[in-house]
Amino acid sequence: MIIQLKANADEQVITGLINRLKATPATVIRINNHLAIPEVKTTALSATEASVVAEVIEKTPAAVLGSRLFQPEDTVITLPHSVIGGKGNFTMMAGPCSVESEAHVRKMAKVAKAGGATLLRGGAYKPRTSPYSFQGLGEAGLKYLREAADENGMDVITEVMDETHVDLIAKYTDVFQIGARNMQNFSLLKAVGKTNVPVALKRGLAGSIDDLLNASEYIAAGGNHEIMLLERGIRTFDNKYTRNTFDLAAVPVLQKLTHYPVIVDPSHAVGEWDLVTPMAHAGVAAGASGMIVEIHDDPEHAFSDGPQALKPDTYLKMTEQVFAMRKLMDSWE
Amino acid sequence: MIIQLKANADEQVITGLINRLKATPATVIRINNHLAIPEVKTTALSATEASVVAEVIEKTPAAVLGSRLFQPEDTVITLPHSVIGGKGNFTMMAGPCSVESEAHVRKMAKVAKAGGATLLRGGAYKPRTSPYSFQGLGEAGLKYLREAADENGMDVITEVMDETHVDLIAKYTDVFQIGARNMQNFSLLKAVGKTNVPVALKRGLAGSIDDLLNASEYIAAGGNHEIMLLERGIRTFDNKYTRNTFDLAAVPVLQKLTHYPVIVDPSHAVGEWDLVTPMAHAGVAAGASGMIVEIHDDPEHAFSDGPQALKPDTYLKMTEQVFAMRKLMDSWE
Amino acid sequence: MIIQLKANADEQVITGLINRLKATPATVIRINNHLAIPEVKTTALSATEASVVAEVIEKTPAAVLGSRLFQPEDTVITLPHSVIGGKGNFTMMAGPCSVESEAHVRKMAKVAKAGGATLLRGGAYKPRTSPYSFQGLGEAGLKYLREAADENGMDVITEVMDETHVDLIAKYTDVFQIGARNMQNFSLLKAVGKTNVPVALKRGLAGSIDDLLNASEYIAAGGNHEIMLLERGIRTFDNKYTRNTFDLAAVPVLQKLTHYPVIVDPSHAVGEWDLVTPMAHAGVAAGASGMIVEIHDDPEHAFSDGPQALKPDTYLKMTEQVFAMRKLMDSWE
Amino acid sequence: MIIQLKANADEQVITGLINRLKATPATVIRINNHLAIPEVKTTALSATEASVVAEVIEKTPAAVLGSRLFQPEDTVITLPHSVIGGKGNFTMMAGPCSVESEAHVRKMAKVAKAGGATLLRGGAYKPRTSPYSFQGLGEAGLKYLREAADENGMDVITEVMDETHVDLIAKYTDVFQIGARNMQNFSLLKAVGKTNVPVALKRGLAGSIDDLLNASEYIAAGGNHEIMLLERGIRTFDNKYTRNTFDLAAVPVLQKLTHYPVIVDPSHAVGEWDLVTPMAHAGVAAGASGMIVEIHDDPEHAFSDGPQALKPDTYLKMTEQVFAMRKLMDSWE
Repeated sequence: MIIQLKANADEQVITGLINRLKATPATVIRINNHLAIPEVKTTALSATEASVVAEVIEKTPAAVLGSRLFQPEDTVITLPHSVIGGKGNFTMMAGPCSVESEAHVRKMAKVAKAGGATLLRGGAYKPRTSPYSFQGLGEAGLKYLREAADENGMDVITEVMDETHVDLIAKYTDVFQIGARNMQNFSLLKAVGKTNVPVALKRGLAGSIDDLLNASEYIAAGGNHEIMLLERGIRTFDNKYTRNTFDLAAVPVLQKLTHYPVIVDPSHAVGEWDLVTPMAHAGVAAGASGMIVEIHDDPEHAFSDGPQALKPDTYLKMTEQVFAMRKLMDSWE
Repeated sequence: MIIQLKANADEQVITGLINRLKATPATVIRINNHLAIPEVKTTALSATEASVVAEVIEKTPAAVLGSRLFQPEDTVITLPHSVIGGKGNFTMMAGPCSVESEAHVRKMAKVAKAGGATLLRGGAYKPRTSPYSFQGLGEAGLKYLREAADENGMDVITEVMDETHVDLIAKYTDVFQIGARNMQNFSLLKAVGKTNVPVALKRGLAGSIDDLLNASEYIAAGGNHEIMLLERGIRTFDNKYTRNTFDLAAVPVLQKLTHYPVIVDPSHAVGEWDLVTPMAHAGVAAGASGMIVEIHDDPEHAFSDGPQALKPDTYLKMTEQVFAMRKLMDSWE
Repeated sequence: MIIQLKANADEQVITGLINRLKATPATVIRINNHLAIPEVKTTALSATEASVVAEVIEKTPAAVLGSRLFQPEDTVITLPHSVIGGKGNFTMMAGPCSVESEAHVRKMAKVAKAGGATLLRGGAYKPRTSPYSFQGLGEAGLKYLREAADENGMDVITEVMDETHVDLIAKYTDVFQIGARNMQNFSLLKAVGKTNVPVALKRGLAGSIDDLLNASEYIAAGGNHEIMLLERGIRTFDNKYTRNTFDLAAVPVLQKLTHYPVIVDPSHAVGEWDLVTPMAHAGVAAGASGMIVEIHDDPEHAFSDGPQALKPDTYLKMTEQVFAMRKLMDSWE
Repeated sequence: MIIQLKANADEQVITGLINRLKATPATVIRINNHLAIPEVKTTALSATEASVVAEVIEKTPAAVLGSRLFQPEDTVITLPHSVIGGKGNFTMMAGPCSVESEAHVRKMAKVAKAGGATLLRGGAYKPRTSPYSFQGLGEAGLKYLREAADENGMDVITEVMDETHVDLIAKYTDVFQIGARNMQNFSLLKAVGKTNVPVALKRGLAGSIDDLLNASEYIAAGGNHEIMLLERGIRTFDNKYTRNTFDLAAVPVLQKLTHYPVIVDPSHAVGEWDLVTPMAHAGVAAGASGMIVEIHDDPEHAFSDGPQALKPDTYLKMTEQVFAMRKLMDSWE
């Protein structure tokens, strides 16, 4: 059940209503003027209670906190150097797949910034298919990434794979990334849900739209509502020429269902650098709030995912085009 | 094996080479300066033969005639009112899912034309999941469609489901459409391959990129090289909020592999009208040579596929935006 | 709407009821005591009419004739040498992928028969991914197949790809096979629906259970109710070690929904001969009414699909095990 | 690279070889007479070293420790009451989806045992799609499960979702289960890989065969080689009548590639109780080493996954049939 409160309603009555519901017993979650009571289907309001209530919505989706029914207005995430979500904002995030060395990530940060990126990406803990592949530089990588971002006036986004790393990584990052393989690692979702660090949740390879929203609800239910959702391709029968199938219709579908910003990741979606630019164009055109891309100055010697990395020149041309496209789209609204 | 001939080479020597290869025996298909000899892997050229040969390519894909290796230059299809394929051309095709009546298709043709469409679509023979659903008006529908197109200076594209209808439909249409369910109806492909009517081949729900190219090869091997390929969504696990998954990466992938124009069909890909506009934006941004969309003035009472039809106002706004996007992209090249 | 008639009801009243409904106007299809009126949702029965009616079922699936609601009893198809469907019947069908020569198909027919097969399979018209692959021997192949079957007291099953071949192939075969790629070739389905030759309809690579049933309804609506359904693998992301994914749960699912016999095709499902025997075991254990398998004495030189063909010895061992398994299962009922 | 050592070779020479390789530096893992050196492609053996070496295999799969190339003989896991894997062993595992109460799990344990199960399953920590669903009884549930198993002379298998729970759960269980959603939770895989508790690794919804083997390698590389693999259905387009698609061909495919036992889980694969028995038959017929099924005496009021639970009578009939089928199959070998 959702209860939409009136604007400027009597806070004492609201508190009374919340306390009565909690005593049922029930979970009651308030964000601004929106109340979610997930397990409860209906309630009889007293006249006093009714005076503060704009609307009661009895039928709600499982992922209630993330739904537009609960919160019609867009979630906007504000970082020191970036604003993610909301009308007219388009956020570029770029960087190497892995943090490879202090010098390399600094070099890549400069390129990322030159292309208009305000977040620097880079993995210090890498989820690799094989245990014998490079697993990341660990805390040293986090330090290099943070320094490179600071040097360029950028925010940091980096992956957390493990709930035991949450506190450590929180010291270095502005945004936690949850990888596709961990989309339903519920322990990890709960752990980041208890922090106040914004979370970028990647859709899993077999993640339906509802699965993704339910996964985000694990984070929100813990109290952390600064969530963005990343479309990065799903697994289908069609995987000879692309690594995954980029499901761009997920962008407008999610925007109907949820208030969280939707970001696209063309690099992982296709896995081949020469397809990244057209898919970046398609991603911005589909209406995404931002984009995350992988760049590398020497893809053939990248520690991971070289084939999908854009070289600096290609990246700079692509971002210029993407921002031009976004500007054109802004003129329509 | 592919043999690329030199420009302005001695035609007599070329004929001699072709005849020698045919006598092997082998199939030899010539298009301009390109020779394909599908079943043959290698040949020893005489000195005279070598004088007309620019390059011999021994390793070729199964769908050799459609490959860029065979014909590097784009296939451009010229109709009375449209040019499809090639640099700088973007072709809009629109109309109702089914031809419903003479008056209705005329009304829809006007709308289509107003939005910049140069081809009018409409089904007279409908492939419906259930035998008890509306199956189309048949030849009467073809007549109405042709008249509506002529009245507005447009070309016609309509589906042929059955090789016994090929001659009949050829009288009325400028382009044969082969539907997704018939992508591997090889008898039908062979039948349209023997005509000189351009063919728009839709990718099947489970059609891989290679399957699509091999299906096009059935048409090309029959002698009809005016082929365009339509991406209209594939079947995946993710089908709650969209009918299919729009595989936009197929656009640049196909453009690398084949010289045929690639057209996108956002209507069938998503199946919900309010997702069609963002997916049309994404489709043009992905680099497609054109787009086919369904329109209807009263979608709730459409004979088929109402939920995915754009109303006239939405369609007109969408096409304006799509052409603006294409114009922006042209400025980059 | 379905109307179940009482046993031994007055035929004159039944005829009156049917005529009244037809005059609505509506399609009315009668099979034994079952009436289907596909487009009609409800009717008010007169007292006389009610006297012959056991039950009116208003909510019906789209594929009404094939549904258990319409006909609760199993469809049993009786051929000169085989009985397909119904309790306690298990039918083996075997033979080469393609008819390769008169001598070869005779040799294979002997092997098939020795393994307990009562139907001989073999393709004379082959649906091949590439137009340059072997396309079958045509009518000569049909003759060889028929003779080989007759010589061994077997029935024939062979594929029809094209409605223009229906009459020709009907002269030689006992069962039409509709291939996976043609599952939704509605013109072909309508064409075989007008014959009285039983039809084995293969599930398409992207065919849902409902799609398969609706496709079968095209045949049934034409008047041909001798239909069997073939599970032969669907297309999924998992195609490195098997050609397709064998969806054996489709066997009991279909048996709940429809009265048509369900046959499994482990050869096409997996595409690798050494996986065929375990999947044949799994297929009989899943409760299928029969099985179709490909055999070849020299798979490496087979004209098509060699990798999935069982050599005679393997086939003979497999069928012995399959029949033993079926016998064990019969003892449970 | 794999080095197969001769039987009864000089241990001192072997140790020398291992030490030389480790000093390269390289990881060297020895299990019996098999050496894996994952990152190394080739080595030149001295004459002395060559004397203890039966074979050097240079080209190896990424998941080397799990491969048949590394260890041709079956892994057999021996628990107090069960033997899993190897010729002629078939292990039944059964129990409720969730441990619901002390009394209930004891009741279910008796039923499980009566059907021939030697492992009792039951979840104390439940991975649920929604955060508002029942999440399990936690440690109390583990205690009840352990007691119920002990009372009936059974072993315990239960899920671990979280590396911080590994030590706690290890006190109560004989086998760790890793759920499908955590198949690529590499931190968790590493954590159980450091224990000596056998691990049952479930295939993820989008997990390819290679992904599953690589995930198992994370466990094996940590030193824990007692691994079994569970096929429990994959996610495909076909999900109206079954929850997932049961990929039974994965059983023989995995048995070719790996020495680990392969177990089938028909309950999760189909998600509907009335399909579980035919799929259990198909599972044993496909050659699995064992089966895990969910049972409940009152499925409508089960805390989780009620629709797929077998009632006791159905379960007892099913297991009797499954063991009869396995006995028949044993008679063939």
